[in-house]
Amino acid sequence: MLDKQYYMFKKRENVADIEEGSLLSPKFDNDGLIPVITTCSKTKEILMHGYMNVEALKLTIETKEAHYWSRSRKQIWHKGKTSGFVQKVEQILIDDDQDCIWLKVKVDGNASCHVGYNSCFYREIKLENGNTKLIFTEKEKIFDPDEVYGDSPNPTIL
Amino acid sequence: MLDKQYYMFKKRENVADIEEGSLLSPKFDNDGLIPVITTCSKTKEILMHGYMNVEALKLTIETKEAHYWSRSRKQIWHKGKTSGFVQKVEQILIDDDQDCIWLKVKVDGNASCHVGYNSCFYREIKLENGNTKLIFTEKEKIFDPDEVYGDSPNPTIL
Repeated sequence: MLDKQYYMFKKRENVADIEEGSLLSPKFDNDGLIPVITTCSKTKEILMHGYMNVEALKLTIETKEAHYWSRSRKQIWHKGKTSGFVQKVEQILIDDDQDCIWLKVKVDGNASCHVGYNSCFYREIKLENGNTKLIFTEKEKIFDPDEVYGDSPNPTIL
Repeated sequence: MLDKQYYMFKKRENVADIEEGSLLSPKFDNDGLIPVITTCSKTKEILMHGYMNVEALKLTIETKEAHYWSRSRKQIWHKGKTSGFVQKVEQILIDDDQDCIWLKVKVDGNASCHVGYNSCFYREIKLENGNTKLIFTEKEKIFDPDEVYGDSPNPTIL
């Protein structure tokens, strides 16, 4: 997968280089994907968790706008192209074993979630008398998804 | 997988309930895992990205200490049991389609990374003249992994 055209990535050869080196050697899983955490650079809140393939990571590094791999649509997903909520990338980090990306972004319009909230993480898990329940931590949607996405299929997979 | 003993989880039946409901219906992938993002509740920095299976999520909710599934050791991993850097869970959130967990934790000793840093994300990806390189954002290790882990195998997989 990491052939010559991806001059950006070094082959993973030993643990010391991966963990303590200065060359980028991302690990893509069996589906060719690497998980990505995206936070708001201003509030430091997590906005979403997504995935990139080689091409999406390359595009994100080069254009400084977040590109993901849409697992539901099975295509490159330039975040905000439909909704207008483009994510401008301010910093890209990678973790110790280089199998996860962290993007710090600025979002036009301040919304990142296809359901209409600021963050995708708008519910907290609580345990009460042995039963779990979800409590909403965001009270109001920032936009109406029906207006923004119209008839586009919902990306949530059962 | 989600049999009766896991009274905590509701079966995933429709998108509206998953996205806007108040019941917990986590999606585990084909390996039985759900990705987890862990942040420091004080600094709001991301400490690590891991995975949980059903049992690890259940243990985390019940004990309020972070438990993960170690993909390298193939066992439940009570974080900090070896190093002493236990993660006390202050809040657990779940995302819109319930396929990712966010833990906000307090860490004894202020270190979360097996390489010795505070965060696993201690390097930034930079693009210079068409070449990527990694720049360290943390300058000093908080602990010496050799002292803490001794001969334990390194979890990084090539």
